[in-house]
Amino acid sequence: MITITVLGSGNVAHHLILNILEQDTLSLQQIYARNKHHLTDIVPEELITNDISALKPTDIFIVAVSDNAISEVSNDITVPNQLVVHVAGNTPMDTIAAKHRKGVLYMLQTFSKDKKVDLSKVPFCLEASDAKDLKLLETIALTFSERIYFIDSNQRKAVHLAAVFANNFANHMYALGEEVCKEHAIPFDILKPLILETAEKTEYLAPKQAQTGPAIRNDSQTIARHLEMLKDPNKREIYKLITKSIQEK
Amino acid sequence: MITITVLGSGNVAHHLILNILEQDTLSLQQIYARNKHHLTDIVPEELITNDISALKPTDIFIVAVSDNAISEVSNDITVPNQLVVHVAGNTPMDTIAAKHRKGVLYMLQTFSKDKKVDLSKVPFCLEASDAKDLKLLETIALTFSERIYFIDSNQRKAVHLAAVFANNFANHMYALGEEVCKEHAIPFDILKPLILETAEKTEYLAPKQAQTGPAIRNDSQTIARHLEMLKDPNKREIYKLITKSIQEK
Repeated sequence: MITITVLGSGNVAHHLILNILEQDTLSLQQIYARNKHHLTDIVPEELITNDISALKPTDIFIVAVSDNAISEVSNDITVPNQLVVHVAGNTPMDTIAAKHRKGVLYMLQTFSKDKKVDLSKVPFCLEASDAKDLKLLETIALTFSERIYFIDSNQRKAVHLAAVFANNFANHMYALGEEVCKEHAIPFDILKPLILETAEKTEYLAPKQAQTGPAIRNDSQTIARHLEMLKDPNKREIYKLITKSIQEK
Repeated sequence: MITITVLGSGNVAHHLILNILEQDTLSLQQIYARNKHHLTDIVPEELITNDISALKPTDIFIVAVSDNAISEVSNDITVPNQLVVHVAGNTPMDTIAAKHRKGVLYMLQTFSKDKKVDLSKVPFCLEASDAKDLKLLETIALTFSERIYFIDSNQRKAVHLAAVFANNFANHMYALGEEVCKEHAIPFDILKPLILETAEKTEYLAPKQAQTGPAIRNDSQTIARHLEMLKDPNKREIYKLITKSIQEK
């Protein structure tokens, strides 16, 4: 049985705690949260403390707090010789206070408050300063998911950046498509099957090979007609720049 | 039984023919193709003609040729008083030769040669100059799909433009994400669950509400670090412009 203590009460902490509770091989030892009441609906109150000095030794401390607080919270853990990991994509492992054995357990997925996340499909990016600790992280991650990646702090920064393009920016393209629909009294529903098909295609075809549309066809007549339809200067500029980028690849 | 004649032998014609053959209420009467051999693997050769004047009267002619050829091919149909429709997103209904009853049956999906498309999930955008013909188009479309939209030529142009954002441009964001991965020796596989989750989210949350990431959080520190990592001026420019666009919404 692996004992785990979680620090934090935000989205990631919430989902992590729920998933730890479901695993027979993992034992949730304690939770540290400044506000106990954020978590009493999912765990017994006696497991939660708002006094960080009350934390006991454990196999692993998982610091699931905002990026800016990782350094301070990890430094406040007073138990000596412990493994302390954070869960942030964009923060180096060394942000954790130097007195601890260090690691990172980064789950590459968006966590919303209301929707339960199925961790079995989530990629886990693991890093640790000590080989034995990395093995422990792998054992923990494998109880949730088969998608395990050993990624150092520099690569993790790049994963986070790549996800901004493939997730945040792709979503903004959906939002711009929705705006065009609204401007012409067309239900956005009409685009959803296409959005899903385009995403599913990545499973068997590299995005560059899957590219379709007027830009890659060099269909200058359609491109000109589209630019004429776009009255919003912001959408025009984006249309031009991405069309150019597709054509230059 | 509705009799259908298809003109064309490209991707859309190919998928349409395969799907018509599966329907008990639809009868494939003839196919016109300049090169018969493109289709002999899916239909008996006696159904195919390369002589457009050999076409017989039918309930509907579906012109599934490239946009530029719609006008000419439809004009070459010599049978009088027929319903002739095209399948193009970005072409007005009136491109069809004036002597015919006119219509459009536009399927909003990407068609690849090798992958069978399940039409039951495809949105059908219908238009016709005559109410009775529109009813016939609806009957035909309903044999394939429940997603029927009555969309005029102007709206269809806008649907096509919206799809460029939500499909072509979103896919290019995947491609840029893949490039960032490659540059840092990270397998692109790591992004696929996130890509799929982001697309699936549109089913229950408007893209604007679903927006996450450093831009919408106004996390200027992360944005600055990302821009510093991006050495490629093209990716930098796209990162800046889309970040600005997200923040202005």
